[in-house]
Amino acid sequence: MARAIDIPDVVARARSGEPAAVARLISLVEDDSPQLPELSKAIAGFTGNAHVVGLTGAPGVGKSTSTSALVAELRRRGQRVAVLAIDPSSPFSGGALLGDRIRMSEHDTDPDVFIRSMASRGHLGGLAGAAPQALRVLDAAGCDVILVETVGVGQSEVEVASVADTTVVLLAPGMGDGIQAAKAGILEIGDVFVINKADRDGANTTRRDVRNMIGMRTADHDWTPPVVLTVATKGEGTAEVADAIAEHGDHLRTSGELTQRRVARAGREIEALALASVQRRFDQVGTGVQELAAKVEAGTLDPFAAAARLLNPSGSDS
Amino acid sequence: MARAIDIPDVVARARSGEPAAVARLISLVEDDSPQLPELSKAIAGFTGNAHVVGLTGAPGVGKSTSTSALVAELRRRGQRVAVLAIDPSSPFSGGALLGDRIRMSEHDTDPDVFIRSMASRGHLGGLAGAAPQALRVLDAAGCDVILVETVGVGQSEVEVASVADTTVVLLAPGMGDGIQAAKAGILEIGDVFVINKADRDGANTTRRDVRNMIGMRTADHDWTPPVVLTVATKGEGTAEVADAIAEHGDHLRTSGELTQRRVARAGREIEALALASVQRRFDQVGTGVQELAAKVEAGTLDPFAAAARLLNPSGSDS
Repeated sequence: MARAIDIPDVVARARSGEPAAVARLISLVEDDSPQLPELSKAIAGFTGNAHVVGLTGAPGVGKSTSTSALVAELRRRGQRVAVLAIDPSSPFSGGALLGDRIRMSEHDTDPDVFIRSMASRGHLGGLAGAAPQALRVLDAAGCDVILVETVGVGQSEVEVASVADTTVVLLAPGMGDGIQAAKAGILEIGDVFVINKADRDGANTTRRDVRNMIGMRTADHDWTPPVVLTVATKGEGTAEVADAIAEHGDHLRTSGELTQRRVARAGREIEALALASVQRRFDQVGTGVQELAAKVEAGTLDPFAAAARLLNPSGSDS
Repeated sequence: MARAIDIPDVVARARSGEPAAVARLISLVEDDSPQLPELSKAIAGFTGNAHVVGLTGAPGVGKSTSTSALVAELRRRGQRVAVLAIDPSSPFSGGALLGDRIRMSEHDTDPDVFIRSMASRGHLGGLAGAAPQALRVLDAAGCDVILVETVGVGQSEVEVASVADTTVVLLAPGMGDGIQAAKAGILEIGDVFVINKADRDGANTTRRDVRNMIGMRTADHDWTPPVVLTVATKGEGTAEVADAIAEHGDHLRTSGELTQRRVARAGREIEALALASVQRRFDQVGTGVQELAAKVEAGTLDPFAAAARLLNPSGSDS
């Protein structure tokens, strides 16, 4: 077990802009540290200022390059930026983020850019449990914009939207991408769409397809997602992406939707933490689970009855 | 809400081999029916006979064709077979299984082959919660072998192993597949490896690569996974796959590992059911979560403290 750290001291240093202190606090989240409740309490009053922007898209659309270009643009606008890359994919993978780190290296020496990869696989509660806590740390540390990227495919691409204020969906020209996007459901969750590699054939077709699909979405708010064309490698279109993100932020604030989204997010976070705490109790009474499981395997107890006993070992009515 | 069904009657009919009755019970699982505890109790004594075989592999390796060929081979051996295709991928997807259903249509008229697609996305507890219950139904219905396929990528590919007695990993020749397999961690979980499309260039290279990787695995049991070459479209190698699966089943039984795996699986199932039950209680006290979330959003309460209150509304020490 890691040595306990002096939370108030490290939080104060993180808030004064010390990257090493921020990194240390994120590590506590990543490691599911027993000090998390203390940390959570210490930063609760300092959060709510950062604009959390989720970046999602299939492999090959130029996610890292786009992120890097966006960071550069936001820095030109004088904003403190954090990039949080979350890897929820496989319990067996590891090191997949090295490539991203290398591509982001142009920002390495900038003290107002904080870049961090975080594994959520060991974390009870997964992405939904780990990401909000890391975001609160970066928020309390004074970041103006936090870009959240997931590495991996499938559900995680959709989950990232659940922790963001604004979700940017990256696409690239070509019908395959369009279909893949629709399949993964990411067209449903975008607040801003970016068609990167727009110097390739088919960019306008893809834009038209995306606009058509946006038109078919169940409109539950009065925001029509803009579709921006970019060539991230040359920085073309990146200012428009930054503008669109800022406009969506303004829309969320003035419409009251920001508070709504954040309350919903806090609700999911609370539930995830509560479930993780219940799960931890199960792990502590591991022999209890084992005994019940042996009975289920032998066919003398059914799984639902076993679950009820696990939750209520005394046997009284639940 | 659906009308309650007569569980003992439908279970009796499912056990006598009536496909419609089996389908009805699986639907209860899929719908997270309130009758599940009753169903679970009714079938507890009839389970433990089926050999549960997980089939996993990246898109494009010929998973459906391989499954279909394997079903045909197992039928030639006189076994009752079920295919359970689980779609845990996206909360927004749907209908992705149509293709699989069509490709499996050659078995449509065989009363001893039960084929079913099941969505796990609406199910509290996800794949881990839904699949074991569906497997118990098929087991109780007298299936000798249950083939479990997941549709989708990433974590679900690994999760399928957690519900299976024997996991078959499908690969196809080509370096790309090898890397993808390693990334997804599926090489870690295979009990039997199948290199399909073995009439293509590179099959022997892929076999050598897989054998090398098997050699590097942390050997925690005395089973060396065989690597079988197949051309599923022609049925070539399928008998060897069926043999390898049966041999692995024998190995599990004689080594005592079958019971171990099943007890571990039952433990995870019990925990998933218990957590789902806790989650259901949260949903019932929805306003409570909402109030706590509003305080967290406002910065007057931290998420950990809120989670503690959710679990223990009376405010006494937990």
